[in-house]
Amino acid sequence: MKFFIAMILLAVAVNAQNHTGKNIEYYEGSTLLEGYVVYPDDIKGKAPVVILVHEWTGINDHVKMRAGMLAEMGYIAFAADIYGKGIRPQTPQDAGKEAGKYKGNRPLLRARINAALAEAKKLTNADVNNIAAIGFCFGGTTVLELARDGADVKGVVSFHGGLDNPTPQTNKIKTKVLVLHGGDDPYVSKEEFDGFVKEMQDSKADWQLFSYGGAVHSFTNVFLDTDNSKGAAYNEKAATRSWKAMKTFYDEIFTKN
Amino acid sequence: MKFFIAMILLAVAVNAQNHTGKNIEYYEGSTLLEGYVVYPDDIKGKAPVVILVHEWTGINDHVKMRAGMLAEMGYIAFAADIYGKGIRPQTPQDAGKEAGKYKGNRPLLRARINAALAEAKKLTNADVNNIAAIGFCFGGTTVLELARDGADVKGVVSFHGGLDNPTPQTNKIKTKVLVLHGGDDPYVSKEEFDGFVKEMQDSKADWQLFSYGGAVHSFTNVFLDTDNSKGAAYNEKAATRSWKAMKTFYDEIFTKN
Repeated sequence: MKFFIAMILLAVAVNAQNHTGKNIEYYEGSTLLEGYVVYPDDIKGKAPVVILVHEWTGINDHVKMRAGMLAEMGYIAFAADIYGKGIRPQTPQDAGKEAGKYKGNRPLLRARINAALAEAKKLTNADVNNIAAIGFCFGGTTVLELARDGADVKGVVSFHGGLDNPTPQTNKIKTKVLVLHGGDDPYVSKEEFDGFVKEMQDSKADWQLFSYGGAVHSFTNVFLDTDNSKGAAYNEKAATRSWKAMKTFYDEIFTKN
Repeated sequence: MKFFIAMILLAVAVNAQNHTGKNIEYYEGSTLLEGYVVYPDDIKGKAPVVILVHEWTGINDHVKMRAGMLAEMGYIAFAADIYGKGIRPQTPQDAGKEAGKYKGNRPLLRARINAALAEAKKLTNADVNNIAAIGFCFGGTTVLELARDGADVKGVVSFHGGLDNPTPQTNKIKTKVLVLHGGDDPYVSKEEFDGFVKEMQDSKADWQLFSYGGAVHSFTNVFLDTDNSKGAAYNEKAATRSWKAMKTFYDEIFTKN
């Protein structure tokens, strides 16, 4: 298994050479943020934009890898920065504390993801009528907040995101919502899961929720090991299946130019 | 909307002309059953087999239509008969009574679907190493029982099937399980849904459960109207999405020859 993961990482590294991104600075209010953008090779004309939102450590190798994969698929991939330039907490303690600032302050979280959306629209070659957002863990929660805020994007996809909604009274979902969930994720309680389903049912939004058996939190992150007992682990099967589900979703939501 | 559905039915009728099936008699014990098989055009050599299990009315136009669609995709489509030749209850009362005989007697239900599996393996050109089973409503429950019985098939797909499991002590799932569920299905209670998730988690089976928002029971059945308030209604979006999910599942589970 370790050999297999090493081979994947090698393939990712080769891919990353082909799809090198660049950092891009932008602001939310007076806060300087630093995102990361990757373009498809030889892009001509407009292309759909996929905004990616990072895990609790901020922009990391995993989200950069996913951005490269999206560029390979023909999308302009824009990894948003929720935390601020240089804020990349590395220990679980620091990451949890930083993520907590935003999970506990949804208006601020919405402001930060909306700043990323505004920036995405300004990107060279951006097809502003074809924008979607995806997020991993903390980023999943973030794109759900973007949806709840009524953002005019084509769709949002949460990969193993937190599903709680502390400010339901502000909901105004207009976009399509796809939640890709680890069927054994110990970080999403049954109450949280049930609350989300109820929220979606009541919202009359266009929602889908896919549960992948045997997958725990962070199942898409190939930089983790595969030990489910830790509660967060890579799961190759669920990672592959969920990525395909996202592709199918894009085929549906993006209009052809 | 009615015009649109009429156009679909017309397309289905045209398709059905291209993919006409034939009835096929077989037995479970001393009970005569009558299934329906459709082959791909110009089939040469072996092809995977998809067993389809009907709704509570027995083999009907909907399952025959789906069989034609599967044949169009290159599969040998075999619509199983659970009830027995000529037993095709048409009123909800009669259909409920007939389905109840099997839902209340899981060993009998398992015997009937296993008889279909045995028959499927005998079909001309059948690739016996690439067999899957799908079912709609009552048929969804049936293919889940096939999985629980330890059947050696590549996978089972339940479309809006009942999820209850009265004989958990007999479980021995070896196949892959994909459940495509209406997110607003009033025929599957929260207790039943939760019980199924718990069953799958405990089983350590390879399971996936996709919920489609806005869809109620029978959401794939284009022969119904689209009035959700009835509890069972066609939902074009969920029907399309779930059929694509099934295709993706086949791409994964069937081995190429």
